[in-house]
Amino acid sequence: MKSSAAQSVSGLSGKGYTAGIDIGGTKTLILITDSSGHIVVRNKRPTVQVQDAESFIAGVFQQLDEVLQEVGLLRDRLAGIGIGFPGAVNPQTGMIHHVPALPLDGMNLLELIGPYYDGPLYLDNDVNMAALGECWQGAGAGSTQMVMVTVGTGIGGAMILNGELHRGAGYTAGEISYFVVDHRPEETSGSVSSLEFGRYESLASGTGIGEHARRWLRQQHGQVGEHIIAQAGRVEDVQAVHVLQLAAAGDMDAQTIMQEPIGYMAAGIANIVSLLNPERIVVGGGVSESSYYMSELARRVQQFTPIKAQLVPAQLGNEAGALGAVYGVLQTFRTPAER
Amino acid sequence: MKSSAAQSVSGLSGKGYTAGIDIGGTKTLILITDSSGHIVVRNKRPTVQVQDAESFIAGVFQQLDEVLQEVGLLRDRLAGIGIGFPGAVNPQTGMIHHVPALPLDGMNLLELIGPYYDGPLYLDNDVNMAALGECWQGAGAGSTQMVMVTVGTGIGGAMILNGELHRGAGYTAGEISYFVVDHRPEETSGSVSSLEFGRYESLASGTGIGEHARRWLRQQHGQVGEHIIAQAGRVEDVQAVHVLQLAAAGDMDAQTIMQEPIGYMAAGIANIVSLLNPERIVVGGGVSESSYYMSELARRVQQFTPIKAQLVPAQLGNEAGALGAVYGVLQTFRTPAER
Repeated sequence: MKSSAAQSVSGLSGKGYTAGIDIGGTKTLILITDSSGHIVVRNKRPTVQVQDAESFIAGVFQQLDEVLQEVGLLRDRLAGIGIGFPGAVNPQTGMIHHVPALPLDGMNLLELIGPYYDGPLYLDNDVNMAALGECWQGAGAGSTQMVMVTVGTGIGGAMILNGELHRGAGYTAGEISYFVVDHRPEETSGSVSSLEFGRYESLASGTGIGEHARRWLRQQHGQVGEHIIAQAGRVEDVQAVHVLQLAAAGDMDAQTIMQEPIGYMAAGIANIVSLLNPERIVVGGGVSESSYYMSELARRVQQFTPIKAQLVPAQLGNEAGALGAVYGVLQTFRTPAER
Repeated sequence: MKSSAAQSVSGLSGKGYTAGIDIGGTKTLILITDSSGHIVVRNKRPTVQVQDAESFIAGVFQQLDEVLQEVGLLRDRLAGIGIGFPGAVNPQTGMIHHVPALPLDGMNLLELIGPYYDGPLYLDNDVNMAALGECWQGAGAGSTQMVMVTVGTGIGGAMILNGELHRGAGYTAGEISYFVVDHRPEETSGSVSSLEFGRYESLASGTGIGEHARRWLRQQHGQVGEHIIAQAGRVEDVQAVHVLQLAAAGDMDAQTIMQEPIGYMAAGIANIVSLLNPERIVVGGGVSESSYYMSELARRVQQFTPIKAQLVPAQLGNEAGALGAVYGVLQTFRTPAER
């Protein structure tokens, strides 16, 4: 395929470089890739903290310019820019909603970005971008039916079905943080708001694992769990990472703690498998680096559904979203002959 | 749009009539429509009960010939035949799997049907067909992001996403009968087989509602629930329909009984909404005829997810699948100019 890669260098207006930007609630990562998708420079820094949308976008482009300067490029040498946002984005209109972490709710991103860049621009949700990235260069490569599940502070989801991102009628598809896998019949009231921590993520995210671990440890007597507490220093500081490390090393208490969050996570993933019959489920976030977690998760998913799917860890780590943003540009703006 | 309908009469090889066949585990429905999709004859009878695939298909075509005879048509006057099966069907290859109710598992339907009909043939899963039917002439009309959920003896699902049926990597998408919405952390073992009654449907199907009602009634004392038992004659004969009728009439005991299965159903539908962000959820089966059921279901779904979707009852009843089979033929074999 070298010839087609060489073609695309000249094909993308002869410019060849693409910027992929992943804006998270806390960090913003910018990658510049050449026309083959190889990263030539990367830059990660705290996300701009300002109150208004205009200053926010100005800050993002200031960071971009500084990154470009490092490699002696100017914005107009870019074949395109892809940007992922932690919210519901309509790539066609540029409208963004449900973006609690940034001062952009209800804004039109195309209008905001227009003054800074008038070349090919691909905008989307950050988890959609991560799924695109994994599908391009990572654990989803070769699959046209793939679901990405990210497990970190929260839980996110994105789907590539029949080779295309499924975004949903209101561009909020993949909001699996709200999954209900633990309904009790006696629970007949209650309500959700779109801003609160989702029910599924309170049970099964990294945050949820930490909370469950601390609760469990406080209920023990004698020396049970002492070595887990020792890892962190004190029980208040025990996080998911401590429990996962010990569970992987064969520690029985840590494995006991992990059963509950893995069980809930497995129920949700089994539901995705039963509903969508994807070829592959790509699990991202810190937990996916634990082979103990991944193999236990696969075992439990099989207890919940007879439908088969490959369960694999993500491969691109924190760069999946920014790489997906690059891929979004290439997919959207390359002519068919260049692909 | 009259002119385009008139065009298609001549367009479909000048034949104009299409057969839609919905093969269920117990009943087989055959519809013949004219080129505008209007039904000219309908025939429903018990599904052929034989042990081998060849005799089964022969029986289906015998029924078809008898229906055609009623209106003075021969098979070769048909512009096409659509057939829905209760199993996982690959419409391209004609392979069928997971079809416990019929002697067809692992067979190639195209090969079996070839000797009887060599015109345009559209084969698919029965719930997919029902979703196509509702999307064409029923509750899904005008929507390109629609999920169909059928609640009867069991629970089935099908999805039209971005205007196309989503069938999944192994053509089993929509197997929501296996949904887990009631996981308990203490439940760490167990297994599923592809043949057993799904967990979700044991809680929330019509069958599940009946079982829950009888269990609930047996636990009561005094006169509680007596009027429900009176509807059926004796507690052993109480079915979902009795409880739904009384609940709709304002009976408190019946409404109490319905809370549990509606709660479980709502959790599963909320999960579909959170994951896929569909525009519309079409609920089919007997329960959907109860406005009490539908409004309670909508209320409970909103307690589980902040993502909005329209929840509407199916409109085509038992004819949705056969009409969808007709639509599948028209969609697949009409030229773009004829659509």
